[in-house]
Amino acid sequence: MLQLVPGDSTKVLILGSDGYLGWPLTLRLLARGHEVSGMDNLFTRRAVAEVGSTSGVPILGPEGRVRAAKELLGSSPTFYRGDVTNYKALEKVISKERPDAVVHFAEQRSAPYSMIDERHAAYTMSNNIVGTINLIYAVMKSGRDTQVVKMGTMGEFGTPNFDIPEAAWVDTKINGKMDTITVPKWAGSWYHWTKVHDTNNLLFANRLWGITSTDIMQGPVYGLRTTDITDPRLFTRFDFDGDWGTVLNRYCVEAVLGMPLTVHGKGGQVRGFLSLEDSMEALRLLLENPPEPGGYRPVNQFRELYSVAELADFVKDVGGRMGLDVKITNIKNPRVEKEQHHYKVESKVLPSLGFNRLKKNIKDEIRLILEDLAPYKSRLGRYRKAIMPRTLWKK
Amino acid sequence: MLQLVPGDSTKVLILGSDGYLGWPLTLRLLARGHEVSGMDNLFTRRAVAEVGSTSGVPILGPEGRVRAAKELLGSSPTFYRGDVTNYKALEKVISKERPDAVVHFAEQRSAPYSMIDERHAAYTMSNNIVGTINLIYAVMKSGRDTQVVKMGTMGEFGTPNFDIPEAAWVDTKINGKMDTITVPKWAGSWYHWTKVHDTNNLLFANRLWGITSTDIMQGPVYGLRTTDITDPRLFTRFDFDGDWGTVLNRYCVEAVLGMPLTVHGKGGQVRGFLSLEDSMEALRLLLENPPEPGGYRPVNQFRELYSVAELADFVKDVGGRMGLDVKITNIKNPRVEKEQHHYKVESKVLPSLGFNRLKKNIKDEIRLILEDLAPYKSRLGRYRKAIMPRTLWKK
Repeated sequence: MLQLVPGDSTKVLILGSDGYLGWPLTLRLLARGHEVSGMDNLFTRRAVAEVGSTSGVPILGPEGRVRAAKELLGSSPTFYRGDVTNYKALEKVISKERPDAVVHFAEQRSAPYSMIDERHAAYTMSNNIVGTINLIYAVMKSGRDTQVVKMGTMGEFGTPNFDIPEAAWVDTKINGKMDTITVPKWAGSWYHWTKVHDTNNLLFANRLWGITSTDIMQGPVYGLRTTDITDPRLFTRFDFDGDWGTVLNRYCVEAVLGMPLTVHGKGGQVRGFLSLEDSMEALRLLLENPPEPGGYRPVNQFRELYSVAELADFVKDVGGRMGLDVKITNIKNPRVEKEQHHYKVESKVLPSLGFNRLKKNIKDEIRLILEDLAPYKSRLGRYRKAIMPRTLWKK
Repeated sequence: MLQLVPGDSTKVLILGSDGYLGWPLTLRLLARGHEVSGMDNLFTRRAVAEVGSTSGVPILGPEGRVRAAKELLGSSPTFYRGDVTNYKALEKVISKERPDAVVHFAEQRSAPYSMIDERHAAYTMSNNIVGTINLIYAVMKSGRDTQVVKMGTMGEFGTPNFDIPEAAWVDTKINGKMDTITVPKWAGSWYHWTKVHDTNNLLFANRLWGITSTDIMQGPVYGLRTTDITDPRLFTRFDFDGDWGTVLNRYCVEAVLGMPLTVHGKGGQVRGFLSLEDSMEALRLLLENPPEPGGYRPVNQFRELYSVAELADFVKDVGGRMGLDVKITNIKNPRVEKEQHHYKVESKVLPSLGFNRLKKNIKDEIRLILEDLAPYKSRLGRYRKAIMPRTLWKK
């Protein structure tokens, strides 16, 4: 990783710095020479335990992580344990750190978890929306031009018949009259709806107060390795259970454990996938290339479109060549979603910054994941029961 | 008011039954022969006091109201003091009452209040959204076909160039492809955004679980009298301050106090207004004529479109003929909104139920308000300082 010349470094505060994306982004930015601070209430650690699961690879606690970064990378983040729904706590960190950018990952990020019951639905709504409101006010009141990088999801769009634009606004004709509207959204879970609500709230704040915003619609991320994670002490968490694991990560664990890969329904659900390394590289590019002050920049963040059935075939193929006996099974879809649909997504921001220049093969990435997970087979096996989906959309 | 024959009566639970609309709806339904229960945490009473104001006419406490209804109407509601954001409390009331319909007014309803600061913004978001989520789950888990009547606002639509349909979905062409999308929304305050978020959440629940829903987009309501309010002991609250008073109610108080009517900006802001009596009649019609089980019925609830400048002219005219010296002044608009714009709204549900058959003249309604307020001139005068807007959208 090339280090920046000192004048080019920025101060970045990562909210949710202990999470799957938050920790490797901390490492990526440190390795690149940026000044990094992080804030986290460690909710995800507790919530994954709540559903009877754990990270598939062992991870250090937040203080251990700071020490490991210092030892292995030569620099470390300032870590604040705190909750972004506590405005005073958030404001204190922001006024102390005076960041050039705040990356907002501090949201409950599991769709199934949000659908467990009313308590989980209400928590997800309140936590995610209030966190973003607090961030908007803390940045607005700081009076500084801080870039807010908010992590949303491509799931906000649902699966429309139109090609999904990479834009906040789109021209359309309704009842015979032309108008410019926000890009239509239709989410598939309470979690996904909080992201829609957050996008609307941030866009409103941008229009009203000029909050400089990068609003990322990200597809499902897979993998557990980035070029900065050079030692197991730097591992980020890796979730694979029915509530917290994203599809390809779950498949890989199933392959390692000799369980059949569980495709939800017909498997024609197409999404825009990217690896953890891709996600880090995209985030680095966006942070090092902020929008104009007061700008609002929506980004569709993914590398390639695949159906979830195709991904299962890839894992079967790669696993087979590694000597694993991989079977595929179609299970009843716990979610309510279209299993065959149109899906085309515009992507121009990240390519314009140099993302995607490197040709990558997803099968190589899958091989890496399977190799990385192999030493943890017995750990994963202890949580075998947590893999099947238990949260159903239809009650 | 014609009483229903017993078999036609329904059981209605009103959440927010102590409020401006909740209390007169209680009376309207009781007078009509329905069984009514109510739940309220009395938030609005405290929040109006918080901004240094009070109801323009004296109102009884919730227990006094129950007694007055019993004495004056011969029947009374069951009242529960409680908070709908407390799921257990809400579920208890719903399982005890087993209502045919739940009317949801239990939301923070002031746009300026939501814009005061981060604490008020976060409260509005969390309170309104969690209340609706709790209601959705309580109804879904009851297993009964209960109509959810949710009060939203025509402010959810903003001021689009297209004619506003009375529908959840609308056909449109985006990027050259036809699709059916939710009616585009663009709100003007955190309060209004919570109503958009609620609409999305309720529509999602309707699609997923078949929650029978009437989703009302109501324009600003004016007045303090309905045909059921035959005695001052039955008064509903009447707000007129800069944070809680809607525009025509504020004008009327200004006229009574000899203050100039304060038109925000140019005054070309057009909205769909209705009187308190109209609102009650519309709600009664919707409750007595529910949608099909599992249906989702959006309603644009208003009588006529006026600009806020026109309304000021009406008050000046009516007040003048009553001997008041009414002046009009244009003040800097505290909100960020278009002051000249297209505005056309579809309305077919309420007319199909018989609403609007009676021709009404808004000037007659204004005369009634001014007459009703006259005895309370000195009470209103004590809160004169609270009338001017203090909450600014631009910080």
